[in-house]
Parts: sequence; C-alpha cells; structure tokens
Amino acid sequence: MSVTGLPFDDFRTLLRDLPGPDAQALVAARERDAQLTKPPGALGRLEEIAFWLAAWTGRPPAVTRPLVAIFAGNHGVTKQGITPFPPSVTQQMVENFAAGGAAINQICVTYDLGLKVFDLALDFPTADITEEPALSERDCAATMAFGMEAIAGGTDLLCIGEMGIGNTTIAAAIHYALYGGKAEDWVGPGTGSEGEMLRRKIAAVEKSVALHRAHLSDPLEVLRRLGGREIAAMAGAILAARMERIPVIIDGYVATAAASILKAANPSALDHCLIGHVSAEPGHLRSIEKLGKTPLLALGMRLGEGTGAALAAGIVKAAAACHSGMATFESAGVANKH
Amino acid sequence: MSVTGLPFDDFRTLLRDLPGPDAQALVAARERDAQLTKPPGALGRLEEIAFWLAAWTGRPPAVTRPLVAIFAGNHGVTKQGITPFPPSVTQQMVENFAAGGAAINQICVTYDLGLKVFDLALDFPTADITEEPALSERDCAATMAFGMEAIAGGTDLLCIGEMGIGNTTIAAAIHYALYGGKAEDWVGPGTGSEGEMLRRKIAAVEKSVALHRAHLSDPLEVLRRLGGREIAAMAGAILAARMERIPVIIDGYVATAAASILKAANPSALDHCLIGHVSAEPGHLRSIEKLGKTPLLALGMRLGEGTGAALAAGIVKAAAACHSGMATFESAGVANKH
Repeated sequence: MSVTGLPFDDFRTLLRDLPGPDAQALVAARERDAQLTKPPGALGRLEEIAFWLAAWTGRPPAVTRPLVAIFAGNHGVTKQGITPFPPSVTQQMVENFAAGGAAINQICVTYDLGLKVFDLALDFPTADITEEPALSERDCAATMAFGMEAIAGGTDLLCIGEMGIGNTTIAAAIHYALYGGKAEDWVGPGTGSEGEMLRRKIAAVEKSVALHRAHLSDPLEVLRRLGGREIAAMAGAILAARMERIPVIIDGYVATAAASILKAANPSALDHCLIGHVSAEPGHLRSIEKLGKTPLLALGMRLGEGTGAALAAGIVKAAAACHSGMATFESAGVANKH
Repeated sequence: MSVTGLPFDDFRTLLRDLPGPDAQALVAARERDAQLTKPPGALGRLEEIAFWLAAWTGRPPAVTRPLVAIFAGNHGVTKQGITPFPPSVTQQMVENFAAGGAAINQICVTYDLGLKVFDLALDFPTADITEEPALSERDCAATMAFGMEAIAGGTDLLCIGEMGIGNTTIAAAIHYALYGGKAEDWVGPGTGSEGEMLRRKIAAVEKSVALHRAHLSDPLEVLRRLGGREIAAMAGAILAARMERIPVIIDGYVATAAASILKAANPSALDHCLIGHVSAEPGHLRSIEKLGKTPLLALGMRLGEGTGAALAAGIVKAAAACHSGMATFESAGVANKH
C-alpha cells in the first residue's frame, strides 16, 4: 500500500471546489435523444442515464472501459463479536476474487466489466473504533490517496465495491454519526448477525459514536475515527473519478457510507454518482434517501463486492448503447407523431 | 403467416393440463446455492431466479441461447383516432428492427441475446373491436399456432415483446374485460395519447367491452374478440414455451395482456414466467398485481419491443452465471460462518 499522498487537510481543499457537469455535452445528448426512433421519454430511466453519462464525461454517452474496483479492509471492531464470519475471510475472499470464484467475477464476465481488487493492508486491521480512532490522519490520507489511484489504468465507468468482515458495523457507525436517530436505525444483519450478536453490534455502534462525539461534526473526522481503510479508499476513488470526469456507480450499504462522507463535506460531491441498487440491509434505503438519490435496482441483494453496482453497470451499458446505436426517425424512414 | 394449426377449442384443452416445475432440479439448485461463497440469501432475487430457471428447465440453471421474440400486428381500432402515430409505423419499425436501428437491437447486442421479429399480416389489420370481433376463430387459432413456432429454432430463455400501433388500446380492452373496474383504470397514454385523443381511447375501450360483453367470461373469447394478431401470437408463444420447458420473460403492458388471458384460463399458466419490468403505462402495475407477480425492474420505460424483458434477461444471465460459476466454500478454502 502506498504511503505517499496528500496531507489530510488537502482533501478538505479538494472537496471544496469540484468540477461541475458539462452543459454542452448534455444539450447535445438531449438533442440526439429527441430524434431517436421511439416516443419521447419512452426509454425512461435509460434516457436519464445517457444524459448523466454525457454531463459527467463531457462526451457523447459511451461505456467502453467499465471497471469494478473492490476495496478490501479489516477492522479491529470485529473483536467485539459483531459478525458470524472470522476476519480471515476478508483475505480468503480476496483470493477468491483473484481465482475468479466470487459472485462479482461471474457478473463481470456476463457484462464484460474489468475488475480490480485493492487489498488494503489486511494484516493490519484498523483500531477498534469502540476504543480509539480507526486511523491516524497520516494513514487515512495515505489510504484516500491510494484509493484515488484506482482509476489510474483508465476507465469511463467506475463501479465502487468492497469486502471487509465487520464493515457493516463500520458503515452503521458512520451513518449514525452523520445522521443521528437511533443506532438501531442503522444497524442491520450484515452477513448474518442476529440475536445476541446483533445486540453487540448495536452496542458497538453506540459506544463508538459516543466516544468520538466531540469530533463528528467534521465529515473527514467521521471517516478517520469511525471508518476503515476500504472506506477511506472508496472515498478517494469517488473523488478522483469526479476530478477525471468518470461517472461512478456506488454499490451497497458500506460503499454508500463512504459516499455519504463526501456528500456531508460538499452537497454536490455525488452528482456524478448513481446508486446501483438498494440492498436488503435495512439502513441502506434510509441512507440513499438522505443522499436524495433513487437506486437503479432493487433485488434484495446484500453481498457487497460491488455486485449491485456491477448489475447496474449492465443497465448503464444498455442505456449508452441505445443512445449511441439507435437510428433516428429520419435515418430509418420512420414517421414521427402526427 | 401460417394458416395451419390447431382448431380454436384445442387451445382450451392444451391450457387445461400444463406441465409443472421439476422438483428434483429445484432441490439440486438449492443444495448447490447453499455451498456458494456468500452468506445464505445474500444474492437475493438472483438466487430466486436461479431456482426458477432450474424448476422450469429441469436442468442446472443456465442461459446459453436467450431469444427476444417481437410480434408485430396492426389494429382496425386505430381508425378511432386513439394514437398519435400512423399505423404505417408498425411496418416501418419492423424494418428498423431488421436494420438494427431500434432500441431492442442495441439491448440485444449489449447482452448477446438473439432477436427474431414475427410480422403478422401487417397489411391486414384486425377488425375494429368497437364494431366487431378482432379475429375469426380460425384466424385466432392460426395466429396462436404461428406464435408457438417462435421457439422452433431453439432457446433456453424466451423474452416476449411486441410492436403494433394501437395495441395499448387493445391491451386496455383486454384488461378491462378480464378485471373490470373502470375503463380509465386500464387506459394510459401509450405512445403519447393525451387530451381529446385519450378520451377517444377510453371511449373505444368502453364501447368494445360493452359490445362483446356477453362473450367475455371465456378468456379465449376475450383474446379473439378484443385482441390482435400479436396478442394471439404472444399467448401461443408463452404456451409453447411452457410445453417445451423454456422459461419466459414478459415485457410490458401489451405483452402482459396476452399473458393475462392465459392466466385467466389456468391460474398456473404463468408459473414459468417472470415479468421483466413494470412500465410507465399506469395500468401495468395494476395488471402485474392481478397476476401475483413482482416485476424485476422498474425503470419508467414504456416502449415495448421487448426492451424491458431484454434488460431483465441481462439480470437473468447474471443470476445463472453466479449460480453456475461461483466457487463453493470448500473449493475456494473460504471459512463459513462460525
């Protein structure tokens, strides 16, 4: 893992002044859409997706190098007994991704999506957030900077996913810190916590937010104190994509936690992002509503790995293909409305 | 168009005794699913889709030859002034499908789906349903039989779509005949009817159902009197797929009207079918609820052509790929829950 990168405070500066949409590319896409052989608006959300691609790439809608980036991290909070899987599963699943055996591999093959896995110091779990900040400023900044490198190989559609035993506890703590309410509003079963384990999970979230309360009005402190390496890296990747005009699809509850931190720092920070799906984790829909977004899919999934974002990328590919490949009324000799 | 086929009454016999799901293939799929490297149920609806494929094909879940079948017909009811597009557009869009310029072509290329277009005597629109039955018994039976041939080239996932200027009026009449309520409950804008045109559309649906009322307790009479050639052919195709153990994805409001006739004739007739999406046509959700189904996608589309079914086929392909391609906990050396 890279330890170079920007000092922590430089991310505040970056977040303050983000590039906006490309109005000209958006107008061009709307003009072409009106000429395609279909009644106006008949492709519904697919048309909105085409406009979104144009606005945030500055080019005619196209998806030629889609990429799923999975960020994997380990979490000291697992020692609180909040998850039914041992932390060793994070590393084992990273190996499963490399071997092509996970769900995300099959979805990437189905839709011809690239896949990169970023293994974030799995042998060095973050500190237990019920006892101390997850990361130092230096570590947090370095991990965000590392996440920014996710797009270095080039892509025109970035799907953000994660793997990390214990990270739905982390995501719940972040949401509870950002939005308040009750800890129970944000804690769900994750990979399958129930009964006494679920009660410990709720208690861990309550204790963490209480411990760090004095510092949680600053979104980057929420990230550093309650987050984890994959959360910091995802935040960096979403931010880097914005800088480089790459549209982003956010996956599930944990990826949305990372995105929510950016939104708290700058209300426009997620304008280049779609929420790929709403997961079965109960806090996810609540979180998406706080972002003012509408998820593309609702399939009752709760796996992470970027699986929901990758399925949504399949839809986005189709939207771009319709926009770029369809005939116009004139070219096809089809009569328009009378 | 073939004029051979079964006599009309033979379809009643066919519908009475339909093959059921394959219990053994379903059990085998559930057993494999439990061993895959994910928490139980974490792929949500994708897992249900894999089970559905197993149950209705009698084999391990796989999609190797998906096919979109578009049935195109013309309707005498268009002379009532119920649609903003001229009937000539049906033929023009069939040519657009052949030339690769329609939305459905782009979606088929995106997901590697086969596409066949069945042009149903476009020069001979059905009779105006506000004045007489759309089809004779002989014509209706021949068209259903023709629709049954849709699967003759072989497929293991059939997406049912349509094209036909005027056919949302036909679909509304069928739904109103099957389910009652008010005509307005079932009439929507279709390709863009509004104002006076929409009022004429509602009036045409009311007049048609009033005219044929004495015969509408028989679902096949609903099809013959209020339907159209593409409706009859879609009903035939869905039925043939059931006989041949081919799972089906139904597209939008018009395709669902054809499916609803089969369901009215036999409550189990659509057990091998998914509803691909809920369209923006207001009656579609109401219709899907009457079928007791949950649509896979909700993207505000209202184009027909099989576009919603084809997008859903992309999801079904991913579901099959996950089930067949994922590693098991044992094969990947991943620790299961403790």
